[in-house]
Amino acid sequence: MPKILRINTRTKEYTFEDAGNYANLGGRALTSRIINTEVPADCHPLSAENKLVIATGLLGGSTAANSGRVSVGTKSPLTKGIKESNSGGLFAHKMPKMDLLAIILEDKPEEGAPFSTLFISDGKVTFKDATPIVGMDNYPAHDKLLAEYGDKLVAAMIGPAGETLRLTATIQFTDPYKRPARSAGRGGTGAVMGSKKIKAIILDPAVSNKVGAVDVEAFKTARKTWVEILQGHPVTGQGLPGFGTSILVNVVNEAGALPGKNFRLGQVDHAADISGEKIAEVINARGGKTTEGCHAGCIIQCSQQYNDAKGEYLTSGFEYETVWALGANAMIKDIDDIAAIDRICDEKGMDTIEVGNTLAIAMDGGIIPWGDGKASIELLSKVGTKDPMGMIMGNGVDFAGGAFGVDRLPTVKGQSMPAYDPRAVKGVGVTYATSAMGADHTAGYGVAQNILKVGGDIDGHKKEGNVELSKNLQVATAAIDSMGFCLFVAFAVLDAPNGVQAMADLVQAYTGKPFSADDLVNLGINCLKDEQAFNERAGFTKMDDKLPRFFETDPLPPHGVVWDLDVDELQGAKV
Amino acid sequence: MPKILRINTRTKEYTFEDAGNYANLGGRALTSRIINTEVPADCHPLSAENKLVIATGLLGGSTAANSGRVSVGTKSPLTKGIKESNSGGLFAHKMPKMDLLAIILEDKPEEGAPFSTLFISDGKVTFKDATPIVGMDNYPAHDKLLAEYGDKLVAAMIGPAGETLRLTATIQFTDPYKRPARSAGRGGTGAVMGSKKIKAIILDPAVSNKVGAVDVEAFKTARKTWVEILQGHPVTGQGLPGFGTSILVNVVNEAGALPGKNFRLGQVDHAADISGEKIAEVINARGGKTTEGCHAGCIIQCSQQYNDAKGEYLTSGFEYETVWALGANAMIKDIDDIAAIDRICDEKGMDTIEVGNTLAIAMDGGIIPWGDGKASIELLSKVGTKDPMGMIMGNGVDFAGGAFGVDRLPTVKGQSMPAYDPRAVKGVGVTYATSAMGADHTAGYGVAQNILKVGGDIDGHKKEGNVELSKNLQVATAAIDSMGFCLFVAFAVLDAPNGVQAMADLVQAYTGKPFSADDLVNLGINCLKDEQAFNERAGFTKMDDKLPRFFETDPLPPHGVVWDLDVDELQGAKV
Repeated sequence: MPKILRINTRTKEYTFEDAGNYANLGGRALTSRIINTEVPADCHPLSAENKLVIATGLLGGSTAANSGRVSVGTKSPLTKGIKESNSGGLFAHKMPKMDLLAIILEDKPEEGAPFSTLFISDGKVTFKDATPIVGMDNYPAHDKLLAEYGDKLVAAMIGPAGETLRLTATIQFTDPYKRPARSAGRGGTGAVMGSKKIKAIILDPAVSNKVGAVDVEAFKTARKTWVEILQGHPVTGQGLPGFGTSILVNVVNEAGALPGKNFRLGQVDHAADISGEKIAEVINARGGKTTEGCHAGCIIQCSQQYNDAKGEYLTSGFEYETVWALGANAMIKDIDDIAAIDRICDEKGMDTIEVGNTLAIAMDGGIIPWGDGKASIELLSKVGTKDPMGMIMGNGVDFAGGAFGVDRLPTVKGQSMPAYDPRAVKGVGVTYATSAMGADHTAGYGVAQNILKVGGDIDGHKKEGNVELSKNLQVATAAIDSMGFCLFVAFAVLDAPNGVQAMADLVQAYTGKPFSADDLVNLGINCLKDEQAFNERAGFTKMDDKLPRFFETDPLPPHGVVWDLDVDELQGAKV
Repeated sequence: MPKILRINTRTKEYTFEDAGNYANLGGRALTSRIINTEVPADCHPLSAENKLVIATGLLGGSTAANSGRVSVGTKSPLTKGIKESNSGGLFAHKMPKMDLLAIILEDKPEEGAPFSTLFISDGKVTFKDATPIVGMDNYPAHDKLLAEYGDKLVAAMIGPAGETLRLTATIQFTDPYKRPARSAGRGGTGAVMGSKKIKAIILDPAVSNKVGAVDVEAFKTARKTWVEILQGHPVTGQGLPGFGTSILVNVVNEAGALPGKNFRLGQVDHAADISGEKIAEVINARGGKTTEGCHAGCIIQCSQQYNDAKGEYLTSGFEYETVWALGANAMIKDIDDIAAIDRICDEKGMDTIEVGNTLAIAMDGGIIPWGDGKASIELLSKVGTKDPMGMIMGNGVDFAGGAFGVDRLPTVKGQSMPAYDPRAVKGVGVTYATSAMGADHTAGYGVAQNILKVGGDIDGHKKEGNVELSKNLQVATAAIDSMGFCLFVAFAVLDAPNGVQAMADLVQAYTGKPFSADDLVNLGINCLKDEQAFNERAGFTKMDDKLPRFFETDPLPPHGVVWDLDVDELQGAKV
């Protein structure tokens, strides 16, 4: 049975434990249960009392399509609440092959202690001096690790932003193309890893135990059904593979829901210049790749390889939300500047959504001109250094607002909003407001029903139906995150009558334990309950579910919609 | 009847209104009622929806000893809750002489608008271009105003910290010696004034209407009794006049309650070097003054004039809390460096408590060495400029903690603790925890009973009795702040059987309206109720009454005491 590896980063002691009370949990359900059970809710997120948990999903290690997402859980230094941030890459599927269900980093070394790299092998953890890669950006540091550990390297690492405890700091994971290009992006998980003085976690390339479904035949059948569901849906079968997530730029702009200029606009004139269609055109012209998967077993392939003007690799995992934050909210029109900033974020280890929005705050505060990509690059180059401007830019929207004197701050629970204006897409607005994660589209993607008309048709301009919609999506999402699935499977599942059953069948066949569609729903509900309970103990109340006042007072052009849900009706979105 | 002057800082319209529903209120009771009634609790403190109120006390304009404190009320950008910060200076007694009960600044000018100076005359408000003094430090800017308006200048002004919207920004008031040396210090009120683009408010020196008690004879009698009470008490009659508030350095250090090195110590070895006795010695040797009042009518005279080594004026209003924050918590041992920083804080317009604690965070984060006064001066010189280090240093403890990656942050509701460790002085610890103001010794000074043994003797190391003590003190303090009294009168009042009655008699005789000791208590209670109600609507709950975890987990040397009051028992301190 896979073990929980618990590592004390101060004493360097570790234990491999049976799952015990954490049995039958995976991914987000597991990280949130551990954090809610073990971390004092009122501790400082960067103190010794906080923990960092990395967990594989219930389908981790399996060949079920799109089941290789890894969950990172902690008390977030950005939101001060519980956080699960998940990522693609090779880590999730590798963990079960090392008999690992979760890795828990505890305590923290005394002040001034050096950074370590954790090398995890069969039943053994080695703390290695990380000095040779400390201060290095993620790509070159990852190259050094590749040189040391070989091409089968599977790493989780932090960049200079995480080392310097920035609130936007990510944990980056090795992708299938030997790049540290996949991010547990939101909530500053990288700062928690940095506070524990762990620069990287390496899973021994030499260990790869055989992992398989307990019920081989049932798994084979379920797996086939699952592939048919994903390939049969227009979004997962055609839209995402064709243009990646940035296909949404034109769609959301058309809908008047693309936040522009720090959430002042619902449409931007230059949408075509930053659209998925434009990006695909540039990629093709420069010999890049328009399709890539973020983890082995992905059949959606929404990622890409974006090359620079010389035809050399610049970035990948170049998501719609990144393009939106930089291209629309910060009004940067040059897609090459946007791609360059995406790369900087991966190099420093920073959340592109929070960083893009923070640039918009710097522009709103007159620090740099609106839309100035070069000035943005210059500002971000300071993050991870001792430059105080880097300290500010690396700490996100609320922090930058305090530094620059900007009072228009599109955040909930300290986390800034992603690429859909809550006034025009109320289904996702309810999620922003009520999720324990803070403003997070991936916690309950009401955009599907409000704009894409997948899984239903609910008017995003009106509040009717959107509280219930968000609640149901939040439950489904928590379950999906717990199985290790990529969230995009939801598009197909929502429209497939047998979608939920197919996922449950996969889990049952893989684990060999009964797992019904009801169990799947309860997995999601219980995960959300853990998260809500933690946040309540941390002092969050319904008052923390408010959106900033300007969403209520300032109508969003072109449709003139405002946010009109009060905190009491929003409580209907909670489990 | 005195009027409420309401000024729209955007349209430049203004009205002089009858007190109406705000009649029979003054000082803190008035500012808190106005803020609770008129400001949306969930607005951003620097947005147009916030207001800034400046009010005189119920005894403003009178000759009652020590009744000339002015109250500033707003939603605090530091705490995000309601704030009343009061100050000495000439403003409070001058307002009634211009028929003013309160001044309310509303709305805010559009982005990029220039700063104005408000010149308030008889029934008229003039917006003057403040450009000539914008960016200037407070003393030279005040000198310019003196040159323009003459020696009878009475001004409220902000320095570069307020102009740049720093969260530590004060409003500075003209003192009786033509200096802008009195501060409404805590909570960032200066940033709110800055957000409304008001650099200074000048009360026309030419207007000075006659103000007197309605019941002249009764007032005369009450006034005499009041003076006897103040002069008869050892603290207000001898201790404070002799050595100023810094008399407390040795006393609190002896008690093991003087927070040192970012609240790691309860005693510091160099206490004698920064003591009130030492300061008096330096002052005398350099031809300064050991006694001064902060406002006309003060008979306690706890202030001073501190000269530099050349015998030239350096600073005044050089309080114990300032000396503590810099000298003990930031471990700066050179009293001249401490005095120089006090002057810098008055020049930039910054709260010395928050700034001293912020320097300790910079030291804890390795930005500058512990106790380095010169490096501290260098850091603070950047505040009010475009230097990002100045943005950080000017924003207080929690902000600097986020910038420098320090997790030991001695704050409650975003405001850092003053000069008494809550583990060893639980009476004031309960006040830190439960006051709507955030950590604030002036909201309920349990130090009196815990250490000074004035007004009772309650063990500060144990929790027993301290919740009730703090509650009673918070009520009394709110009443004292509403009458316009200096808080130090409380020492005498607590030990004088006729103390409360004497204050009530003064109000009744001055206003000509019945005012009993019960009315005085209810004034305090209702004021606190307003403040609690505002904070509740702003989203504060009992969970915001927690002290940071390290007070519970780390025993304070030398007595090894910890904080042991849970949030439920703390609720007993609320009205």
